[in-house]
Amino acid sequence: MVFEHNKKYIQQFSRAIEEQENAYLVSEMESLHSADIAQILYQLNTAESKYIIDLLTAERAADVLSEIEEDLRNEFLKNFTGEELASFMDHMDSDDAADMLNELSVKEREEVLSSMDNRERANYILELLNYDDDCAGGLMAKELVKANVNWTVQRSIEEIRRQAKKVEKIHTLYVVDDYDVLLGRVSLKEMILAEDDTLIRDIYVPEIAMVHTYQDEEEVAELMQKYDLEVIPVINIQGKLLGRITIDDIVDVITEQAEIDQQMMSGISDNIEESDDIATIVKGRLPWLLVGVLGGLINAQFMGLFEDSLAVIPILAVFIPLIAATGGNVGIQSSTLVVQALANSNIQDSNWERFMKVTSVAFINGLLIGGLVFLFVFVFFGELKLSLVVSIALFTVVMIASLMGSITPLVLDKFDINPALASGPFITTTNDLIGIAVYFFVARMLLNI
Amino acid sequence: MVFEHNKKYIQQFSRAIEEQENAYLVSEMESLHSADIAQILYQLNTAESKYIIDLLTAERAADVLSEIEEDLRNEFLKNFTGEELASFMDHMDSDDAADMLNELSVKEREEVLSSMDNRERANYILELLNYDDDCAGGLMAKELVKANVNWTVQRSIEEIRRQAKKVEKIHTLYVVDDYDVLLGRVSLKEMILAEDDTLIRDIYVPEIAMVHTYQDEEEVAELMQKYDLEVIPVINIQGKLLGRITIDDIVDVITEQAEIDQQMMSGISDNIEESDDIATIVKGRLPWLLVGVLGGLINAQFMGLFEDSLAVIPILAVFIPLIAATGGNVGIQSSTLVVQALANSNIQDSNWERFMKVTSVAFINGLLIGGLVFLFVFVFFGELKLSLVVSIALFTVVMIASLMGSITPLVLDKFDINPALASGPFITTTNDLIGIAVYFFVARMLLNI
Repeated sequence: MVFEHNKKYIQQFSRAIEEQENAYLVSEMESLHSADIAQILYQLNTAESKYIIDLLTAERAADVLSEIEEDLRNEFLKNFTGEELASFMDHMDSDDAADMLNELSVKEREEVLSSMDNRERANYILELLNYDDDCAGGLMAKELVKANVNWTVQRSIEEIRRQAKKVEKIHTLYVVDDYDVLLGRVSLKEMILAEDDTLIRDIYVPEIAMVHTYQDEEEVAELMQKYDLEVIPVINIQGKLLGRITIDDIVDVITEQAEIDQQMMSGISDNIEESDDIATIVKGRLPWLLVGVLGGLINAQFMGLFEDSLAVIPILAVFIPLIAATGGNVGIQSSTLVVQALANSNIQDSNWERFMKVTSVAFINGLLIGGLVFLFVFVFFGELKLSLVVSIALFTVVMIASLMGSITPLVLDKFDINPALASGPFITTTNDLIGIAVYFFVARMLLNI
Repeated sequence: MVFEHNKKYIQQFSRAIEEQENAYLVSEMESLHSADIAQILYQLNTAESKYIIDLLTAERAADVLSEIEEDLRNEFLKNFTGEELASFMDHMDSDDAADMLNELSVKEREEVLSSMDNRERANYILELLNYDDDCAGGLMAKELVKANVNWTVQRSIEEIRRQAKKVEKIHTLYVVDDYDVLLGRVSLKEMILAEDDTLIRDIYVPEIAMVHTYQDEEEVAELMQKYDLEVIPVINIQGKLLGRITIDDIVDVITEQAEIDQQMMSGISDNIEESDDIATIVKGRLPWLLVGVLGGLINAQFMGLFEDSLAVIPILAVFIPLIAATGGNVGIQSSTLVVQALANSNIQDSNWERFMKVTSVAFINGLLIGGLVFLFVFVFFGELKLSLVVSIALFTVVMIASLMGSITPLVLDKFDINPALASGPFITTTNDLIGIAVYFFVARMLLNI
């Protein structure tokens, strides 16, 4: 039941805007989720989008703006005055508001913050602006419900009622001491089950997963994923409760990380998107292409040494793509498996066992591929020695590429470099070089050139 | 604060097991999260693991078993009798229990189910066993709290109290009509805020995201991610409420999907892990290696046609790896960007705009790379015509590989094949072939061979 925005529907929307059929537009938007409205805005032009947002209540507009993708939000925000933005932020969760403000200039930020009516939220946002985007502090929202450990259930429920308007989703009641130091939590379910005069002290769960403001977003993701959490509290160095991170933001972190890893595997160095401008895309793609080109040129220089051999036995050249491609493919397969095992902290066997397994797999694949290619070359080219050279070189390349592919990510990981780097052009380029060196070495040995 | 299992700690555990220091073990495990205990078990041998599980209460053992990774659980389960397993399942959420039973033989399943004391749960599990693993029905748990639309808040809270023991985490109260058809939901927060005699009819939120049992897990993930949901109800074709899916299971789906895509990009055809046995790994890796080998052999056959030219101008051969590698790298970059744009349903520009952008980026990269290589070849090899051949061929290969890389995933997507397939050996092999054909074509034109 994913909402589908077909072209006809969007055209209908455009026409209604043109003819200012506000009643139709308002009733249509009432039936839509904010995320769906955001997706409609993507397909309208700037003036049309602005028209739609102006028709919404400030609260709804805030929801819709929170849903708009980061890359595109900047464009949208330009359509609104500081005061208009302030009226949206009055209704926005502090984390979403801080994210949005981060995209404005310092001057614009100040203008928006000073125009906000909701002073408490403005202060929250101001605090959040201090944190880096990719740490727990940058992900957290300030809105949460907390109770003192010495209160009764009755008093806590009154507190929830008082605070509930400010907090959209309440997962849990955080329990703190007199100094606001986080002690534990009580689920809403427990609150409903408990008697009114029960003390929070007697029902709260002390053991709790929590993160510090400075912790990396990936650590937060790992923790929440491991313990199946929907929300995690954020504390400062003194243990004071500062905010909470909800799982929806972490799902975005996980998805983004997977995208970055994929791009790294494809030799794209910045995190770019198809919708970025041409200069950004070129800048993101060129570095690794150049590394590949450099590898190719070194290869050309190396093979130049064998120009004479190639003149004597030109057929040697025709198997170069086969050798290079096989080395690259085997290397990338090996490194990807190791990268994934690292990501899952899932390396259980000892180094020796893993080495033996990698070697066995490489041995079997190398033997099968080498054997097959031996037959093919012998049948189609009819030269025994050439068949031997190609198949022995292939076997060796498969063995070496497997080992290289398995070891490189481990080495990168040791040096705190994202091991996914090893699954990209880096390993292909290296294996091209090694593969061709092996090939000519074997040829020289067997063909006496 | 991710829990670290250092070797010393594990050794201490092993020693305590050997010396049967049960008091120490029990107190140690009380302070640990079930997920942490599961991770400790990975590092103990089978007998030690069994010893630990036996020390736990059935409820705790059930939690720990639910946390153990699917690939390893099968081994663990062999250590327990049907009756022991039944006693764990009495305390397990129906979705986890069904997942676990799925790994046993039909006979073992029946033995476990018939030994369970909790008959309601046994029936739940039996129902869930009917669904495929990767659809909404296979992901859902039967445990949920629901209320009739005509009840009061007071009566619903009584119902929550009654049902709460069976349901570990309560996110929301589902509202149904007399025929159990899902109408909407009330959050626990709203329940706490409402007066006792308010009717559910007057406070429930009717608009609701829901999925059918047969929907694919990726659709469920997309929906929950889009609407930032922590839980989603599952209905049958008549709209009857059957269960619910929680976000922690969806986070696992998202992570697994990213892994599968990564493996597809690396040319691994089955979803394998480093910890799988050698035969499985070989089987997962061989098919795409063979495709690459086949491509290399076709390439060899094609280049065989130019054997005479190669004999005359052997230096032509040394740039083959450069041409092939660049084509492969450019193609993979392009396809990855399109695959990600497809995954984000984030293609906003028209086809024409996108075509122009892809072409512009390719043109710039092709020009830069071509120019650079022209200079290099001219300086180091000192042959103008050769420099022209190599750089013109490179430029052409960059243009063609970009277009191929951009179009292939769109075509695969049209035919409902996972477009990530286009970012792997498939595109590299194709581009190798095209690149070398272009190279020899340009060489023949310019060098008159």
